[in-house]
Amino acid sequence: MIENLIHEECGVFGIYGAKKAAELTYLGLYALQHRGQEGAGIVSSNGERIYQHKGLGEVNEVFSHKEILSKLRGDLAIGHNRYSTTGVSSSVNVQPLLITYKKGNLAVAHNGNLTNSYSLRVAMEKEGSIFQTTSDSEIILHLIARSKKDKVEQMIENALLKVKGAFSLVFNTMDSLVAARDPYGFRPLALGRLKNAWVVASETCAFDIIGAKYERDVQPGEIAVISQKGIKSYFPFKSVQHAFCIFEFIYFARPDSIIYGENVDKIRRGLGRQLAKEKPCDADIVISVPDSSNTATLGYSEESGIKYEVGLIRNHYIGRTFIEPEQTIRDLDARIKFNPVRGVLKDKRVVIVDDSIVRGTTSRKLIKMLRNAGAKEVHFRVSSPPIISPCFYGIDMPTKEELVASSKSVDQIRKYLEVNSLGYLSIDGMLSMHSLGGRNFCVACFSGKYPTRIESNAGKFVLEKKCCGQL
Amino acid sequence: MIENLIHEECGVFGIYGAKKAAELTYLGLYALQHRGQEGAGIVSSNGERIYQHKGLGEVNEVFSHKEILSKLRGDLAIGHNRYSTTGVSSSVNVQPLLITYKKGNLAVAHNGNLTNSYSLRVAMEKEGSIFQTTSDSEIILHLIARSKKDKVEQMIENALLKVKGAFSLVFNTMDSLVAARDPYGFRPLALGRLKNAWVVASETCAFDIIGAKYERDVQPGEIAVISQKGIKSYFPFKSVQHAFCIFEFIYFARPDSIIYGENVDKIRRGLGRQLAKEKPCDADIVISVPDSSNTATLGYSEESGIKYEVGLIRNHYIGRTFIEPEQTIRDLDARIKFNPVRGVLKDKRVVIVDDSIVRGTTSRKLIKMLRNAGAKEVHFRVSSPPIISPCFYGIDMPTKEELVASSKSVDQIRKYLEVNSLGYLSIDGMLSMHSLGGRNFCVACFSGKYPTRIESNAGKFVLEKKCCGQL
Amino acid sequence: MIENLIHEECGVFGIYGAKKAAELTYLGLYALQHRGQEGAGIVSSNGERIYQHKGLGEVNEVFSHKEILSKLRGDLAIGHNRYSTTGVSSSVNVQPLLITYKKGNLAVAHNGNLTNSYSLRVAMEKEGSIFQTTSDSEIILHLIARSKKDKVEQMIENALLKVKGAFSLVFNTMDSLVAARDPYGFRPLALGRLKNAWVVASETCAFDIIGAKYERDVQPGEIAVISQKGIKSYFPFKSVQHAFCIFEFIYFARPDSIIYGENVDKIRRGLGRQLAKEKPCDADIVISVPDSSNTATLGYSEESGIKYEVGLIRNHYIGRTFIEPEQTIRDLDARIKFNPVRGVLKDKRVVIVDDSIVRGTTSRKLIKMLRNAGAKEVHFRVSSPPIISPCFYGIDMPTKEELVASSKSVDQIRKYLEVNSLGYLSIDGMLSMHSLGGRNFCVACFSGKYPTRIESNAGKFVLEKKCCGQL
Amino acid sequence: MIENLIHEECGVFGIYGAKKAAELTYLGLYALQHRGQEGAGIVSSNGERIYQHKGLGEVNEVFSHKEILSKLRGDLAIGHNRYSTTGVSSSVNVQPLLITYKKGNLAVAHNGNLTNSYSLRVAMEKEGSIFQTTSDSEIILHLIARSKKDKVEQMIENALLKVKGAFSLVFNTMDSLVAARDPYGFRPLALGRLKNAWVVASETCAFDIIGAKYERDVQPGEIAVISQKGIKSYFPFKSVQHAFCIFEFIYFARPDSIIYGENVDKIRRGLGRQLAKEKPCDADIVISVPDSSNTATLGYSEESGIKYEVGLIRNHYIGRTFIEPEQTIRDLDARIKFNPVRGVLKDKRVVIVDDSIVRGTTSRKLIKMLRNAGAKEVHFRVSSPPIISPCFYGIDMPTKEELVASSKSVDQIRKYLEVNSLGYLSIDGMLSMHSLGGRNFCVACFSGKYPTRIESNAGKFVLEKKCCGQL
Repeated sequence: MIENLIHEECGVFGIYGAKKAAELTYLGLYALQHRGQEGAGIVSSNGERIYQHKGLGEVNEVFSHKEILSKLRGDLAIGHNRYSTTGVSSSVNVQPLLITYKKGNLAVAHNGNLTNSYSLRVAMEKEGSIFQTTSDSEIILHLIARSKKDKVEQMIENALLKVKGAFSLVFNTMDSLVAARDPYGFRPLALGRLKNAWVVASETCAFDIIGAKYERDVQPGEIAVISQKGIKSYFPFKSVQHAFCIFEFIYFARPDSIIYGENVDKIRRGLGRQLAKEKPCDADIVISVPDSSNTATLGYSEESGIKYEVGLIRNHYIGRTFIEPEQTIRDLDARIKFNPVRGVLKDKRVVIVDDSIVRGTTSRKLIKMLRNAGAKEVHFRVSSPPIISPCFYGIDMPTKEELVASSKSVDQIRKYLEVNSLGYLSIDGMLSMHSLGGRNFCVACFSGKYPTRIESNAGKFVLEKKCCGQL
Repeated sequence: MIENLIHEECGVFGIYGAKKAAELTYLGLYALQHRGQEGAGIVSSNGERIYQHKGLGEVNEVFSHKEILSKLRGDLAIGHNRYSTTGVSSSVNVQPLLITYKKGNLAVAHNGNLTNSYSLRVAMEKEGSIFQTTSDSEIILHLIARSKKDKVEQMIENALLKVKGAFSLVFNTMDSLVAARDPYGFRPLALGRLKNAWVVASETCAFDIIGAKYERDVQPGEIAVISQKGIKSYFPFKSVQHAFCIFEFIYFARPDSIIYGENVDKIRRGLGRQLAKEKPCDADIVISVPDSSNTATLGYSEESGIKYEVGLIRNHYIGRTFIEPEQTIRDLDARIKFNPVRGVLKDKRVVIVDDSIVRGTTSRKLIKMLRNAGAKEVHFRVSSPPIISPCFYGIDMPTKEELVASSKSVDQIRKYLEVNSLGYLSIDGMLSMHSLGGRNFCVACFSGKYPTRIESNAGKFVLEKKCCGQL
Repeated sequence: MIENLIHEECGVFGIYGAKKAAELTYLGLYALQHRGQEGAGIVSSNGERIYQHKGLGEVNEVFSHKEILSKLRGDLAIGHNRYSTTGVSSSVNVQPLLITYKKGNLAVAHNGNLTNSYSLRVAMEKEGSIFQTTSDSEIILHLIARSKKDKVEQMIENALLKVKGAFSLVFNTMDSLVAARDPYGFRPLALGRLKNAWVVASETCAFDIIGAKYERDVQPGEIAVISQKGIKSYFPFKSVQHAFCIFEFIYFARPDSIIYGENVDKIRRGLGRQLAKEKPCDADIVISVPDSSNTATLGYSEESGIKYEVGLIRNHYIGRTFIEPEQTIRDLDARIKFNPVRGVLKDKRVVIVDDSIVRGTTSRKLIKMLRNAGAKEVHFRVSSPPIISPCFYGIDMPTKEELVASSKSVDQIRKYLEVNSLGYLSIDGMLSMHSLGGRNFCVACFSGKYPTRIESNAGKFVLEKKCCGQL
Repeated sequence: MIENLIHEECGVFGIYGAKKAAELTYLGLYALQHRGQEGAGIVSSNGERIYQHKGLGEVNEVFSHKEILSKLRGDLAIGHNRYSTTGVSSSVNVQPLLITYKKGNLAVAHNGNLTNSYSLRVAMEKEGSIFQTTSDSEIILHLIARSKKDKVEQMIENALLKVKGAFSLVFNTMDSLVAARDPYGFRPLALGRLKNAWVVASETCAFDIIGAKYERDVQPGEIAVISQKGIKSYFPFKSVQHAFCIFEFIYFARPDSIIYGENVDKIRRGLGRQLAKEKPCDADIVISVPDSSNTATLGYSEESGIKYEVGLIRNHYIGRTFIEPEQTIRDLDARIKFNPVRGVLKDKRVVIVDDSIVRGTTSRKLIKMLRNAGAKEVHFRVSSPPIISPCFYGIDMPTKEELVASSKSVDQIRKYLEVNSLGYLSIDGMLSMHSLGGRNFCVACFSGKYPTRIESNAGKFVLEKKCCGQL
């Protein structure tokens, strides 16, 4: 479980060649809502004009009237769901970012995080560039605009050769949809078809809602230009070993999605099964931290033979605005999200499976809730290894200091959480599953070994524009 | 599964003797949000003045600023979540209803439905009464105001002796909290304590969030007056055989709540287990229609030994406003709610467990989705008997004509749903579980036999005020 | 000048026999906006159903989307603009009030104030009536519903014979528009035609905007029933001496309206001219407190020969919500409304004409502003007599204690305002104008002599429902 | 009268050295509201961080909660009111524009229009710059960021030496407030003091509301840097003949403001007086098109001896959203703004004074309204010369083709307007007034002679980003 709502990534969507493209993008973003609830936006084009609407809030809130969608004309559209980082959210960062430059208009939606954004930005600022957002995606637009090439695809290629790190991108160039993915393939990006239209999305659940068919992934290192001439792919990057984010399997992606060509559900189940092998437990029931850990918990139950139970109920009505009561109610923030099922827990030796532990603070409160509900023993099992290092490729994690496993041993964490036993999945176990065999994953957050060099100032500039903005 | 969002009931909450009572009521309503999302309201009092805030939307939306709550002063508060009936929603009906009458101010929040409201209302109109809402709860207020008694508790008693049907009520009389439940006990109403304060709520999950302790149910036929003098109970009604709504166990209540003194989770599990005994199935996996059928499905899995799987993902982001796309996307309304997990379903013989079938239209679409996702066989199991008659006690169901089981045999429904087999739980099976032994339930929607006389015009007057209002 | 936004009355509008009646009502309310900015509402009917929309705010804000108006179907509609009394505004009081009663549906919009509402309400409460608003208009609906008569017009007649005080009313009975005015004719109500449709409105400026033609006033004591059969009038009241509110001429009505058959502009000019005769002044320029005193000031200038100047600019952008700065800025509340024109005022002996003085606090600040802007002398002239008694007929004034002229002599007020001289118009002067000759006016606020008996508890019950509500 | 709401300019405000600077900026923007109602924003700073809030709507709407203002910390703040151009309004253009660049953060608020923005922008785009707004103000920020100078003041100086046209600017550099005005002085910019704080504003009415004192104008060609060290001025521009916008006197500025060191009221009165000398009339009354022409009309009345009357009432409640009725009501758009006072106009020979004629369409409707209200003759007098050429210095006018006087003679316009006579003020007359003697004005819109070269593509790029955006 990732605490404090700091976890979500972004979702991107693009479609070319479909009537009312914005409408389909709206549905796609709706299906990708779990990847970001802070803001949403769509930029569409009919070849002659470009149309934009974006705002703070969930897709439903930003696109609250039929009229808004019907103004977003054209057969080409891209969209973006933005994640919530801290509490302060600024609408200037809501994507897609739309600019005017020497070739006309260009919009981009970005999932991922650049690792050389600080040096690129400082260098460009030295040369006189201005930045209007705190998003690293703006850097990509600057680089494109500075390219000496003639065609927009070449300019994009040019720019992407300069950035390092993670990017799954969709561009609206007014007459083409360009999809690009970094050579490591950090973040997912799937390609699908809806009759004659082409669709790209962070996850295939966005294809399902509009009835599109998954074709294949946009390949690591691929720049796919989709236009009237069909789809044309470029592979300009030097080949590197892939580094697919394994956290998508562990936590982020929806279980009904296909990621890196694999069913998320199947892998996630395997993680739970492997966890049961590695960290068995003598207990009466196994429960999940809903909903993200449900599938891994089923795997644990299958392998261990311990009865699967629903021991926690998740409140799905929590919105962006929740009024904090002035009076003290113990562990209210945990209570607001979850409520234990006493009848299930009472006098039971309980295994609780969670997908991950970040800070550990909410887990600690949750465990107290289980005990108060009568659990005799609480055994904590985590379907991923200890997180010891922050991610620089697009997963918003706290600093190393705040990661409980960066400074505490498993036993120390066990004491902190006040559980009878604590067991994490091993890195090898995580990677051992047959289905993961052929792929290469980024496990930097668990191993501390990053597939790319990380600039010493990575992530720094985000803090520099010390602005509490709201439009 | 109840389709088309026509299903939800109301939730009521009341608290006496706690500082910032409105704040605790807000949290209670938040926990009861599943019982009604159309509107919410709180009426608080500090003994001298009465304060009110209500509006259309979820609790989070209606109470969107801290300032709103802080204006609702006093140690006494009642709250209400209203369900959504059709599409048109009128804010005049949002409860609590607050009036001025000969004794000062009075507010009420009501869960349930009166069965003699039409005749009472016609009679009172003949004598010159006016009605400003289309809510039957307004009738209760009229009756109280007309009582010749001296004290407000007596006036309430007087009034409640005249109404028939289902009522779980909380009143704010400015210096007392009055909780009342009809002698049949149709709808639940629980009583709890939070230090020195008394709390009442439709379900105990509202106690959990504020840390209150469940004491007992408000008894069928009890009028409990909670004031500075403590709690005092009256039992003015003629004793009748209890008729607890069994639908609370089947669908409405949250599994973490205690209803009629029983854990909902436990009963719901038993329903699934009994269903497996009565309607076994030769299949590879059993899946649930999430989230309401999860618990019953676990029971089915346990009893049958068929593997429990997560085959459908529910989208939790659907809000009140969803823009209908102009282009045709097949079965979009089902897709917006659910997405099948292909990896789980492919080439499998699937049992799907749902809590109920009302119209059957969404179920039919859902089954198509399962087949399109590769399910080899689909066997439908329902953890309740066929619904053949509408409810007149507070569950908002469609008319008899719209209930698929009112005119079709099980085999005809099977053909309509296009499933390989269909099995409902029997009424006897539903009632057979040991834990239900001592209680008496209303099963009118399954049997067509109503515990009380239903006026021929029951439900009629709601349609008379042909008003499309919005404040 | 009436201070503190406590002054405005209501505006009513009704139309029968015009397509899209709600649209025309919207325009009419827009023209009557000066009579009330707190809330607005429309109830329309197509003979079969009744439609309602109301809310807090100006007409523009309440009817913010085309869709809202298009849902208000039918050829018959009534509308209401509500005034702002204190700061707390409750949406339950927004009119028209719509009820269901024995005859079906009925809606009313009311301008004026009943003087026996307290005793009527207490009597009805004793018999068991409930009140859901703090509006005296609800009493009228109760009385109608209690009438033993058969036809709605008779029931209305019946009810109105029981109420005392001021009422200009429009009813929507679903198939007729009923307009009624109390026998004293306290508040205005004009009747007009738009092709085949009939229109009623508080002021004729509402006719002008839709191109309707003023026909005549609804007569004091007239109940006009407008239906498919045309217009039919009843005069059920005992004849009394008319008591037209003279304050409409002094302050409320727009100068482009016709009130009581007279051009407001013309009368208001006459008041200024008479003031110049009674209270001449040796000064360089005469300025107005814009906009309400502009016309009277022109009259003063004409008669006195003193040059008319624009010495104060009024800020028209002030909305309902104005953020009070935390730091102290002297006389900010006056500055927010007005700014002096230094070039006009500097070194001048200035006469400032205002329509009235209520509390005197804002006037005092205004005069300071004039002095700070360089005015050598400030002479205050008021185009009405001293207000010594509150109005009980629909003008929202402060209590007697707060009226500066109720306890201070003119000289004392002069000192308080810190002006070189102060002159009020005399009551005789006010009534002397040839054009007012034939009419009889209510001058109770100036004379303390009320044309009707005022109940000792008049106005009391408004305070009883101590509710700070908002829907 | 400028029709169709296409006319308003911008207002800028800045303050250094006052506690709660944002609060004072809010008040300043409120006083400058007449200069732009489309959007508003404030950027404040406490030296360490920079804070921003902006949005679409009037100041009251954008800053709707106290909380918003209190989050804008610091002793330094700048603000901006944006005018409404067409119907489509994009929030990305709402100012102040806030960027990050090599020196940290910088925000600017701009009144005026650059005349070489197209070539500057094309040149910068060629070099790889991107533009995120359609505002020419963004160009200034790019130029500053590209400057090779060390200090921000020098960088600003550097940048401003490259732009041509009209600019009155305020910058928030986090530790200084920089105010700059182009060497022609096209747009006004006043400097004032509030105790120890320095204030700049487009008009002095913004000083009056906060109690600040007008000191002097920011001089044409002056760059004033206000910081802890006090105020320091630079005059880097080549000296040119001043070209103060005379339209500020004619129409834009509030009459209570001091512009270019002169009382607007006094000049505007003089224009009316001069008009009466040049274009006398044999008539009974003279009326104004309120409110902008009130002062000129008073001048006309004084000089001519024709009686000043209030013949038109302006509706001040018209907001940004007005629902267009579906049914045809003749000249509704004029009626919504104005209503004639029949009693004043009937059987009268009327002179109507307006400040200007742009397209003439609304004037035509207005004149019809006067005739329908009974005016026997209508004589139109305009207190400015015929507008024949659009403004390129910050007044948003329609294209030359749409300006009625660009293609029609005065007599043709007279016929089009259907007036008995039409008289414009002469250019010489306009400039003849003693008080204008020492100054030099831009009269390009009347003469077609622009004080600066206008790029052939001036104003073009605004159209290029064909975007209908909304955030």
